[in-house]
Amino acid sequence: MIIIMRRGATPEEIEQVKAKLEGLGFGVHLSEGVKRTILGAIGGDKSKIDVEQLMSLPGVERVVHVMEPYKLVSRAFHPDDTVVEVGDVKVGSGTLTVIAGPCAVENYTTLLETAKEVKKAGATILRGGSFKPRTSPYSFQGHGLEGLKMLASAGKAVGLPVVTEVMDTRDVEVVAQYADLLQIGARNAQNYPLLKEVGQSGVPVLLKRGMHCTYEDWLLAAEYIASSGNTQIILAERGIRTFETHTRNTLDLSAVPVIHKLSHLPVVVDPSHATGQAELVPAMAKAAVAAGSDALMIEVHHNPQTAWCDGRQSLNFQQFSQLMDEIRTIAQAIGRKVAA
Amino acid sequence: MIIIMRRGATPEEIEQVKAKLEGLGFGVHLSEGVKRTILGAIGGDKSKIDVEQLMSLPGVERVVHVMEPYKLVSRAFHPDDTVVEVGDVKVGSGTLTVIAGPCAVENYTTLLETAKEVKKAGATILRGGSFKPRTSPYSFQGHGLEGLKMLASAGKAVGLPVVTEVMDTRDVEVVAQYADLLQIGARNAQNYPLLKEVGQSGVPVLLKRGMHCTYEDWLLAAEYIASSGNTQIILAERGIRTFETHTRNTLDLSAVPVIHKLSHLPVVVDPSHATGQAELVPAMAKAAVAAGSDALMIEVHHNPQTAWCDGRQSLNFQQFSQLMDEIRTIAQAIGRKVAA
Amino acid sequence: MIIIMRRGATPEEIEQVKAKLEGLGFGVHLSEGVKRTILGAIGGDKSKIDVEQLMSLPGVERVVHVMEPYKLVSRAFHPDDTVVEVGDVKVGSGTLTVIAGPCAVENYTTLLETAKEVKKAGATILRGGSFKPRTSPYSFQGHGLEGLKMLASAGKAVGLPVVTEVMDTRDVEVVAQYADLLQIGARNAQNYPLLKEVGQSGVPVLLKRGMHCTYEDWLLAAEYIASSGNTQIILAERGIRTFETHTRNTLDLSAVPVIHKLSHLPVVVDPSHATGQAELVPAMAKAAVAAGSDALMIEVHHNPQTAWCDGRQSLNFQQFSQLMDEIRTIAQAIGRKVAA
Amino acid sequence: MIIIMRRGATPEEIEQVKAKLEGLGFGVHLSEGVKRTILGAIGGDKSKIDVEQLMSLPGVERVVHVMEPYKLVSRAFHPDDTVVEVGDVKVGSGTLTVIAGPCAVENYTTLLETAKEVKKAGATILRGGSFKPRTSPYSFQGHGLEGLKMLASAGKAVGLPVVTEVMDTRDVEVVAQYADLLQIGARNAQNYPLLKEVGQSGVPVLLKRGMHCTYEDWLLAAEYIASSGNTQIILAERGIRTFETHTRNTLDLSAVPVIHKLSHLPVVVDPSHATGQAELVPAMAKAAVAAGSDALMIEVHHNPQTAWCDGRQSLNFQQFSQLMDEIRTIAQAIGRKVAA
Repeated sequence: MIIIMRRGATPEEIEQVKAKLEGLGFGVHLSEGVKRTILGAIGGDKSKIDVEQLMSLPGVERVVHVMEPYKLVSRAFHPDDTVVEVGDVKVGSGTLTVIAGPCAVENYTTLLETAKEVKKAGATILRGGSFKPRTSPYSFQGHGLEGLKMLASAGKAVGLPVVTEVMDTRDVEVVAQYADLLQIGARNAQNYPLLKEVGQSGVPVLLKRGMHCTYEDWLLAAEYIASSGNTQIILAERGIRTFETHTRNTLDLSAVPVIHKLSHLPVVVDPSHATGQAELVPAMAKAAVAAGSDALMIEVHHNPQTAWCDGRQSLNFQQFSQLMDEIRTIAQAIGRKVAA
Repeated sequence: MIIIMRRGATPEEIEQVKAKLEGLGFGVHLSEGVKRTILGAIGGDKSKIDVEQLMSLPGVERVVHVMEPYKLVSRAFHPDDTVVEVGDVKVGSGTLTVIAGPCAVENYTTLLETAKEVKKAGATILRGGSFKPRTSPYSFQGHGLEGLKMLASAGKAVGLPVVTEVMDTRDVEVVAQYADLLQIGARNAQNYPLLKEVGQSGVPVLLKRGMHCTYEDWLLAAEYIASSGNTQIILAERGIRTFETHTRNTLDLSAVPVIHKLSHLPVVVDPSHATGQAELVPAMAKAAVAAGSDALMIEVHHNPQTAWCDGRQSLNFQQFSQLMDEIRTIAQAIGRKVAA
Repeated sequence: MIIIMRRGATPEEIEQVKAKLEGLGFGVHLSEGVKRTILGAIGGDKSKIDVEQLMSLPGVERVVHVMEPYKLVSRAFHPDDTVVEVGDVKVGSGTLTVIAGPCAVENYTTLLETAKEVKKAGATILRGGSFKPRTSPYSFQGHGLEGLKMLASAGKAVGLPVVTEVMDTRDVEVVAQYADLLQIGARNAQNYPLLKEVGQSGVPVLLKRGMHCTYEDWLLAAEYIASSGNTQIILAERGIRTFETHTRNTLDLSAVPVIHKLSHLPVVVDPSHATGQAELVPAMAKAAVAAGSDALMIEVHHNPQTAWCDGRQSLNFQQFSQLMDEIRTIAQAIGRKVAA
Repeated sequence: MIIIMRRGATPEEIEQVKAKLEGLGFGVHLSEGVKRTILGAIGGDKSKIDVEQLMSLPGVERVVHVMEPYKLVSRAFHPDDTVVEVGDVKVGSGTLTVIAGPCAVENYTTLLETAKEVKKAGATILRGGSFKPRTSPYSFQGHGLEGLKMLASAGKAVGLPVVTEVMDTRDVEVVAQYADLLQIGARNAQNYPLLKEVGQSGVPVLLKRGMHCTYEDWLLAAEYIASSGNTQIILAERGIRTFETHTRNTLDLSAVPVIHKLSHLPVVVDPSHATGQAELVPAMAKAAVAAGSDALMIEVHHNPQTAWCDGRQSLNFQQFSQLMDEIRTIAQAIGRKVAA
């Protein structure tokens, strides 16, 4: 149940509605937008609410029943698209944002070279993993804090905000100091303490869908972040696990229109992890744009054959640059512009 | 193992290679193209083949080992794209073909009206089910032969070739008389007697991927048709079964570039059955085009609310017409034209 | 909606209820048991039924609303367990039936030897494939009619009824002449013309669950057989397709108690096809018995290393004999006896 | 590559082999058993190892190549079954251990009552969640530290060791103070920082399989714990996510024989979470025992209808007690005894 106040409703009117809901046993979530204030009634016994009575309180415009188990991230709760601000890049603003960079930060020299190249080609956010979740404990686990600092430096050097993964609640504070966007990986998609922690960090979050997560699971994971105080969330489709093994995962592009229907949050598609094969990335990147994705996340490496991880799915500079040209054409065809 | 003959190899040279292979215990499949002839060695013991010796036979240009379990439908066997001719419509020729029409043939009047409308909007093949595979025995099972005749009539009336499903080996002959393209549905994707029968029909086949079929299963099903004498096959991606239940199935668009890599056969995408929701069809149709699909298959109904089956996923005339406009723009952006 | 008549209801009373339902637009399915008659109202508009009025008709004991989309195979429609009679073997009678034999009939000599051995060890139905659904058109496709005759002969020679797969509607008549139980394979689990045809054959049917079929899909497939006149159906769990590839499929043993809850039909478990590995068969066979399965279906070969198909999952005679001993102990522990 | 030393090999001999391996660029993991010492060579370039030369070093009995990506948890590395000691309960010792208790700790009174009842019926480890991973942020999240203390008290009061979930690296230390066995839940099955942390805790770990994890993923997760210093790990099968939605998840009982083949670690089966329905728990619990599971984990609640979470899948005292009787009979049939 959400209560939408009229434009110009006074603080007193808002307080009165809040008190009313609390008196009925509900928790109240206040969302104060530029134009109007919305109150979400959480928990409690809906049957106790007399809608007529609520409607009659001064300042109330509309009372909406949200059927979905998620509230703050639902389209019903917040009909307008959310724009997530990553540095000065606006994701979800009707433009198409491209996030690019290596799977893992390897060393500063190649990272900086990559940052320059992806920026030149048109990417506006730099990615690079430093705390790496690897299936085997014997694989390279990332450079940790050191890699994080390299990433932040490279971003500053070329003038791009940066995104990197955080895996441990104990690292959120330090990662939030260096990164402009905190990535929650697929394996931590239902790591609720971590979701709460990034929700309290004040830094925007890129939330990957777990390989086994339904749309509802995914939106509820986002709700953990939102209900901890942070609705600056980008939802990342990166493939789900199915019986098909030719591709690394099965990219579920239907997620794009479905999430746009169910939620106001922007969507990014990661064709690199989903397909696991560089030669499939361009087709699926273009398809993602045509499906209406707000952003793309693409792995680019200066020399994929020598990459410390996921080289098989990384584009080289030339391939990425060519893909960017193709993407611009598709974006234009559906009335979007690639952010620059 | 395939043996590619030089341009201008004589019938005697070809016969000599064939005899050699048969002498070693292989079955031989002859593929006589415009430019050159290819011989496929099927079965037998590969270790017996002395590649040097084969290469030394007159007229032989190259000997290629096909690793995949499917041969005739593999890209290695036939490097050029296959173009499937449905009436005078060429599928896979670099243009984009749109197949449209109702899920089921209901009556002649509305079918004819639909045929006119989809043609006007730009579809070049008419679809309509008459033998319907329904999950429940108590659902409408289609009009059978009567519906088939209506479909053929409507196609003739508006000048569009028609596609319809055949489910029973005993019906292949009669359906082949009326239809320009025989559809094998997802539930019969591994019904091998049926695949063999349509392979012998001489009519092109649209082969849907089974809900549980890997790319390899699907290509092996096509191989059943091809090895029965018919390589005029269009492969139809229509969604696979996964844990996600919000959509009817999970449309696996990665199938488009993967199949184009593995096989020479054209691909059609059916966003209607995959998503099961009309409001998701446009986004996924556009994504399919951007991914490089050769064709689309879209359910259109004069009044979806009253459809006898699958109304939930059908577009009305106005929605279809608008989608065709959008599709043209995307097709152009990737250098294709919608067939007209 | 089903109408249960009182014991001793007269034909006139039954006819009156039937006429009443038909007058309301329902199809009527009559199930005349030894003790009482049950009428199933199929299709039609439930809201038109006045339960009070129906109850007041002479001879009516109870009116039950069946919520499930399947009727004749539902437990609600037929509360007692169905016993399927295969030759003189009763499947579902509280005993445990073991079906065993080779994947494919290879030749009469080894088939007869296998038949003798599995009978000696305790199997009471002989299996052997003659029409084989193989993923590749280049694999051995079975001996067809010739193999069928060998199977029937071997069965007669040792005194065991036989089960074999039928894949083509055109073969049902001839297979029904030789087999005591018709198997519908997983790939034909939703081949509706075939289901209707075996439903009309008068011979009991073993219906395998499709690799992608939910319990509901599976029961609706059984409903196709039942609504064609044949409720002598055994439901075979043989594994579903999941992301796990170590085993051939994922054996879903929960199917046993779930099907027993939803339906009155007996269940058989096939651990050979599900696991695809002989060394896993004993553990899963024992688990199936403990879960309450009415029967087991196990592949046994005189020399698995040389089997023409599925040797990897076949037990040899000694392994099968030892498994039968272990199964007897488990069966006894849950109060069942292995049929002999 | 693992090097198995002879019984009675001297420390000097062991040190010499270790130095040799390190000289070749390998990390060395030393496993000093009661009978003999095993050295694991991790990482490095296998082609550099001269097996003959290694074999010739004094004290070396055998050199074994481990193909699997996991080493310490593989059966090849450690052929004997591992016995995990939880308090004085030995899991994997050939007996059957039953873990039981409520999904969540609600209050001390009912917890103590439940502890007494499950102990009386035959359970030897008490379960109870206090840090609860809930799909929705608006569901009860557990009593945290307070609940943990109640659990430890109840366990002490009745004389049962206790198991509870830990979700946050920051909580491992405190949970390890109160619990005898640390549970890693399915959602954290690939939370690698958490796995490393419990690996360093010195307390045995119960590792649930993630809903999307293959056997290999799962064993690699265990390898994270083992390579952090702790091989006291019980692997918990609790169902995987498939397309079937009638059951909460699909219990994959084949995991039991497969894990026993691939690894030396004991396996526990959780039929409560897998099925999600109390009426399916007994059949699947018995099947798990017959499949060879070392332990069962069953949710028991004093009044399932009023449970704060997962009441739908909880047994009441009477149902649990009856199930224990049935389990004893099955265990006996396969030559195991229920631990007491």
